[in-house]
Amino acid sequence: MKRENLIENIKSKGSFLCVGLDPDIKKIPEHLLREENPLLAFCKAIVDATAPYCVAFKPNLAFFESMGVEGWLALEDTVRYIKENYPDQFVIADAKRGDIGNTSKLYARGVFEHLQADAVTVAPYMGEDSVTPFLGYPGKWVVLLALTSNKGSHDFQFIQDGEGHRLFENVILASQKWASSDELMYVVGATQGKMFEDIRAVAPDNFLLVPGVGAQGGSLEEVVKYGMTKDCGLLVNSSRGIIYASTGADFAEAAGHEAAKLRDQMAGLLKEYGVID
Amino acid sequence: MKRENLIENIKSKGSFLCVGLDPDIKKIPEHLLREENPLLAFCKAIVDATAPYCVAFKPNLAFFESMGVEGWLALEDTVRYIKENYPDQFVIADAKRGDIGNTSKLYARGVFEHLQADAVTVAPYMGEDSVTPFLGYPGKWVVLLALTSNKGSHDFQFIQDGEGHRLFENVILASQKWASSDELMYVVGATQGKMFEDIRAVAPDNFLLVPGVGAQGGSLEEVVKYGMTKDCGLLVNSSRGIIYASTGADFAEAAGHEAAKLRDQMAGLLKEYGVID
Repeated sequence: MKRENLIENIKSKGSFLCVGLDPDIKKIPEHLLREENPLLAFCKAIVDATAPYCVAFKPNLAFFESMGVEGWLALEDTVRYIKENYPDQFVIADAKRGDIGNTSKLYARGVFEHLQADAVTVAPYMGEDSVTPFLGYPGKWVVLLALTSNKGSHDFQFIQDGEGHRLFENVILASQKWASSDELMYVVGATQGKMFEDIRAVAPDNFLLVPGVGAQGGSLEEVVKYGMTKDCGLLVNSSRGIIYASTGADFAEAAGHEAAKLRDQMAGLLKEYGVID
Repeated sequence: MKRENLIENIKSKGSFLCVGLDPDIKKIPEHLLREENPLLAFCKAIVDATAPYCVAFKPNLAFFESMGVEGWLALEDTVRYIKENYPDQFVIADAKRGDIGNTSKLYARGVFEHLQADAVTVAPYMGEDSVTPFLGYPGKWVVLLALTSNKGSHDFQFIQDGEGHRLFENVILASQKWASSDELMYVVGATQGKMFEDIRAVAPDNFLLVPGVGAQGGSLEEVVKYGMTKDCGLLVNSSRGIIYASTGADFAEAAGHEAAKLRDQMAGLLKEYGVID
């Protein structure tokens, strides 16, 4: 999906919500366990219920992989289901991949050519030649880890070099030379609050994928205040807060309700900040 | 597998060779494409031919994932085949995973409980709570990226903090507090040569998984000179140099021949450095 289409979808829906698909076999409603593929049944129901309120879905590969072949089947079928029924949705394979060049090339082949996702999250530790094999696919995106939402983000990402640049800034500064904002986004955790100002200082134009609203405690208002651009420039993800809003028979309805609430809040913020009229 | 068993296997075989399983459908011998699962047929033949000369196998998940469900089936069956036929082999899922705690927990469930690998490679960027969910599985190991073999290792891994510690040293220093050398190894590329001295200064006792010998140009003698401990402390990986030694009908024989050559060289070095008599 091209940048202008993503922006158009955000404006027309009044939403920059990404729904995270983290289907845990130990958490999904019990009645789904009787389905042929419970993870797939769960994801389809969540997708149907939330698609009107979001512009992106983010299947988290760990949750599918944990089930092996059965999980991988559910992943492929979930992505196919979204692409066939909701072609305007942006699909992010949340995989945190990254390896030497010839290996990253195969990961790219897997997520873009085989799985047909629009974007993949990539870990920057191994540097340029671990990231560039994911670039250059028309309409496909790299979402590079910059400043994550978890406690461990403080272990290495804030380490300062001799010039005062922190690691997450070095990652952004270096990667700005590898790709334009037409195919490169960054992961910045909602829990980092005011740090979004520092991110925008080095990545003024890139879309940011923002996890950490909801279960992890980040504030949507703060993210928007410090991170929003004239094109919105944000995809804010919620996973657990939406998909496990209820674990009963009404799980999909509850998920839709939570997604609608976030959409309404987002529509208000998009107006307040002048992105839409 | 426990540390003492790994060391025992190395000593009795006179080998610290890890054979990397990177089965690329575009590279494997043509006659295998007629098999029901070509990747699996390729891996089984390589395993049979090289098992006498190595102590570990390292399936590279990218190569399996690139084929989706069919690849994941080949991966599971390959690991099962090794475990059933060569129970002394140490199996490393080369996955470079790492995410927030609740997600890393699912990756760990996938590689350790479902896939039954002995070890998994993990990327450190997201810090402590992204790594610790992989720890605490009895007999299972984390192999944390420290100093990788690729050109991009120079982009971030050598960045120095105010106290003169480079990022790879900070990763080792921090992670030494998370786990003992009974369940924590590090990835250090063979191409880093003399840097193994600096690694041993901060990780004197940990096993190092060393890619980069062969196709990537690293020197086995240098790795041993600067990195070997009294317990060997090294698992040196070769992938392409072994598995694609021939792409003809004799591919397995050629792979066995290359593995045997490396084993002979390793046996000589183990003697020279007094690890075995």
